[in-house]
Amino acid sequence: MTVAAQMLDTYPHDLGGVDRQKLLACIEACVECAQACTACADACLGEEMVADLRTCIRTNLDCADVCDATARVLSRRTGYDAGLTRAVLEACAAACRACGDECGSHASMHEHCRVCAESCRSCEQACRELLTSLG
Amino acid sequence: MTVAAQMLDTYPHDLGGVDRQKLLACIEACVECAQACTACADACLGEEMVADLRTCIRTNLDCADVCDATARVLSRRTGYDAGLTRAVLEACAAACRACGDECGSHASMHEHCRVCAESCRSCEQACRELLTSLG
Amino acid sequence: MTVAAQMLDTYPHDLGGVDRQKLLACIEACVECAQACTACADACLGEEMVADLRTCIRTNLDCADVCDATARVLSRRTGYDAGLTRAVLEACAAACRACGDECGSHASMHEHCRVCAESCRSCEQACRELLTSLG
Amino acid sequence: MTVAAQMLDTYPHDLGGVDRQKLLACIEACVECAQACTACADACLGEEMVADLRTCIRTNLDCADVCDATARVLSRRTGYDAGLTRAVLEACAAACRACGDECGSHASMHEHCRVCAESCRSCEQACRELLTSLG
Repeated sequence: MTVAAQMLDTYPHDLGGVDRQKLLACIEACVECAQACTACADACLGEEMVADLRTCIRTNLDCADVCDATARVLSRRTGYDAGLTRAVLEACAAACRACGDECGSHASMHEHCRVCAESCRSCEQACRELLTSLG
Repeated sequence: MTVAAQMLDTYPHDLGGVDRQKLLACIEACVECAQACTACADACLGEEMVADLRTCIRTNLDCADVCDATARVLSRRTGYDAGLTRAVLEACAAACRACGDECGSHASMHEHCRVCAESCRSCEQACRELLTSLG
Repeated sequence: MTVAAQMLDTYPHDLGGVDRQKLLACIEACVECAQACTACADACLGEEMVADLRTCIRTNLDCADVCDATARVLSRRTGYDAGLTRAVLEACAAACRACGDECGSHASMHEHCRVCAESCRSCEQACRELLTSLG
Repeated sequence: MTVAAQMLDTYPHDLGGVDRQKLLACIEACVECAQACTACADACLGEEMVADLRTCIRTNLDCADVCDATARVLSRRTGYDAGLTRAVLEACAAACRACGDECGSHASMHEHCRVCAESCRSCEQACRELLTSLG
């Protein structure tokens, strides 16, 4: 069991009707995607063709920041606010969509973009599944 | 002229049709609000009646994280993505609304909540004005 | 293989003499610890005895912020600066030590503090091992 | 009076022997520098000669992350830990020194680097003055 799963299980109250499995999957996807995007921005910066990767670097940086904030909001269960959670998940899904598309367009040339694009797509899907489950 | 204003003025390209004054106001409001919310969460934590301020602390922490991410996204102009900017601004306005309401409800008792609520409301307004100007 | 490991392996240059295994372990420990501390601060906030957990919550919040920044600095390999890396790792080890001690002192009463203390201690150790390997 | 100053003044306890003026100056310098570094990384990314600015972009990103974390740690007064504060301030001073030097070396060619270098130097000085005052 991951530490994130243990932290959810030791929360002193119930999770307020949120689907535990979808919540956990989304927290873990956001944490993973934030790190992947930070590393991909840096790998792009190290490429010879960095001038062609400007948009990719920028989108990676945005996606890392939004995923970080989303992982934090989702990791908090006290004083839960469904409306705020939804707005943050929508922003995160949008950031992951943009970054998955951008990295995906470089995936055949740069392995780091391929790995990062997959992480973005998984994270977008985890956000959308959690959104759907929130009703 | 603030450093944030100087950074916008020295960006090597034009701002891609974004209203410079509204963009600057929103960046500065997000930066100010993130710090105010971090400090207000801590001040609430130091209050004798901390048990009554749980939701306030949590909302402060969320608002700080979302404002931080929004300030970063807005500070980037290269590879501008209007759709992502809009989604992030919507999340930030929602976080500021929730935190302004929560802190506002404690404003008569705690001066730090009064100051923080004002900062949240200014930031929410700055987000909405920038959103409107993006069309 | 984790996504963080794949991102290291797809970096377009060598890692500049840094021990790959210790670097990866430290990145993953920082990412895990940041999330655990965010969740533990929130779980403490939800406890009936929140007034006794003020220092724990504050130390959790600090540790989350420092671990997040450290994970980001370590995930970047381009333009590597050993001096800055060392200073950040020292700060992260200090934050993890403080939080591991504080959460550890509540471990017998709160399971979330026990899990979080273990994550902090693993992260402190990973930071110190990477520091030692940097020479 | 800035919002950061108002937040310090409305903290419900005394500041535990920390020099209020140096603390406020350091919080405000960190907040300003984090934003400047985020914007400078992006401005560098937009320059035609981006391939010559790789180290500058990376150092900007590190400095932004470390300044952000430092501003947050300093904004918290509850459960104050002098040892952790010192380690974080040392890391922040190191990040600002590295970024001030790197941006400073491009200051004659890029106005955004000149503005950012000044902000980094001010922030380094504010960190060192607060460190000295902590004894």
